[in-house]
Amino acid sequence: MTPTIAFDADDTLWHNESNYAQAGVKLQRLLNGYRSDGQVERTLGEVEIRNLPIYGYGIKSYTLSMIEGAISLTDGRISAAEIRQIIGIGQEMLSAGVVLVDQAQETLAALAGSFQLMLITKGDLLEQEVKIERSGLAGYFRYIQIVRDKSPAAYQQILDRHGIRPGQFLMVGNSLRSDILPVLEIRARAVYIPYEHTWAHENPPEDQAHPRRYYELENLGELPALAARLEWE
Amino acid sequence: MTPTIAFDADDTLWHNESNYAQAGVKLQRLLNGYRSDGQVERTLGEVEIRNLPIYGYGIKSYTLSMIEGAISLTDGRISAAEIRQIIGIGQEMLSAGVVLVDQAQETLAALAGSFQLMLITKGDLLEQEVKIERSGLAGYFRYIQIVRDKSPAAYQQILDRHGIRPGQFLMVGNSLRSDILPVLEIRARAVYIPYEHTWAHENPPEDQAHPRRYYELENLGELPALAARLEWE
Repeated sequence: MTPTIAFDADDTLWHNESNYAQAGVKLQRLLNGYRSDGQVERTLGEVEIRNLPIYGYGIKSYTLSMIEGAISLTDGRISAAEIRQIIGIGQEMLSAGVVLVDQAQETLAALAGSFQLMLITKGDLLEQEVKIERSGLAGYFRYIQIVRDKSPAAYQQILDRHGIRPGQFLMVGNSLRSDILPVLEIRARAVYIPYEHTWAHENPPEDQAHPRRYYELENLGELPALAARLEWE
Repeated sequence: MTPTIAFDADDTLWHNESNYAQAGVKLQRLLNGYRSDGQVERTLGEVEIRNLPIYGYGIKSYTLSMIEGAISLTDGRISAAEIRQIIGIGQEMLSAGVVLVDQAQETLAALAGSFQLMLITKGDLLEQEVKIERSGLAGYFRYIQIVRDKSPAAYQQILDRHGIRPGQFLMVGNSLRSDILPVLEIRARAVYIPYEHTWAHENPPEDQAHPRRYYELENLGELPALAARLEWE
């Protein structure tokens, strides 16, 4: 059986969080006359987290939260023209090109000969599919899974569906909460490659610290050497 | 091999379009002082269609289009408080319960013994998963597929993935464009059950009229009798 290496997409294979950070800066600039940058950042974060259960992830959700946050931050004094500009910030994000992380393409090319590669990403279905297309990386993956949330059960279901044993599965990602801990939970292995900007919500709560081991690499380019020396059970 | 009957979800198993229609009426009421109901409806439809390629389907997309449409319809005179109300209309839609179409549950129960049932729906991943959960119907389906668009290639991929021959596949839905024509295209069969409100965009363009035959029923309750007399190749 060929071992499977699965990759997270956003901020593992291509830059994503930096687009949200840039949009946040544009919102701060727009609300410059009303509130301080710190107040804008804090309120936007609060509105986002509050809306997550009904909106889910993605740029459209973020745009709606920017509008709601801006109305609240300005006590309703924001103009329709300014709200139109926030819609424009979101539409720009949706049309933006995909910028690959360093060595993403080379790493996939090096692994594709010896491993079955999989992409496991969460978020808005349309937005993720568009990014996968624009990335030019789709051809490397045997399976592409877009899931609603990366729980242990969700990973277990993917392994079951494709008949993969946990010892034959390695997940690579930048989020301890989404890519690493739930995978250890189902007794498979994981490689953590931290990203420069990691959204606060993606950090695991202190009490979820996990006893099992995972690998940590500085960048994707180190992955083929690690994969080659792992024992696949 | 057990034949497969696949169902569209929105406006086939549960009411959906009527929620959008009701939200549209709320927007008309909100913009009452600015524009006629007809103007609101027309502009909203135009903005929706224009945004479809970047926003995709779903309530969040619709909410963003309502806001954009309202700003344009009022020439920027709409207040932030009124825009906050539009965000509220969208959030209400997202929290709304699922109302099943008449006989949906009974029909699935009647078919489940003799057929493999599948759900094939398009749209926002989170919104669709929430509706499937709230519907209470998930247990009837062997497979649930949420796809970005219902093209012939998308249906072919689903059949290939599950090793289903076209002669063993029947698709049931309310949209000629999404549920019927692409399925005939791949030489499988389809049952068309028109819904009272069908969104203009879901009607196929005249020139796509298709030579092959499909079945048309008045309601879901007629499906078990049809399925029982079909020959499965």
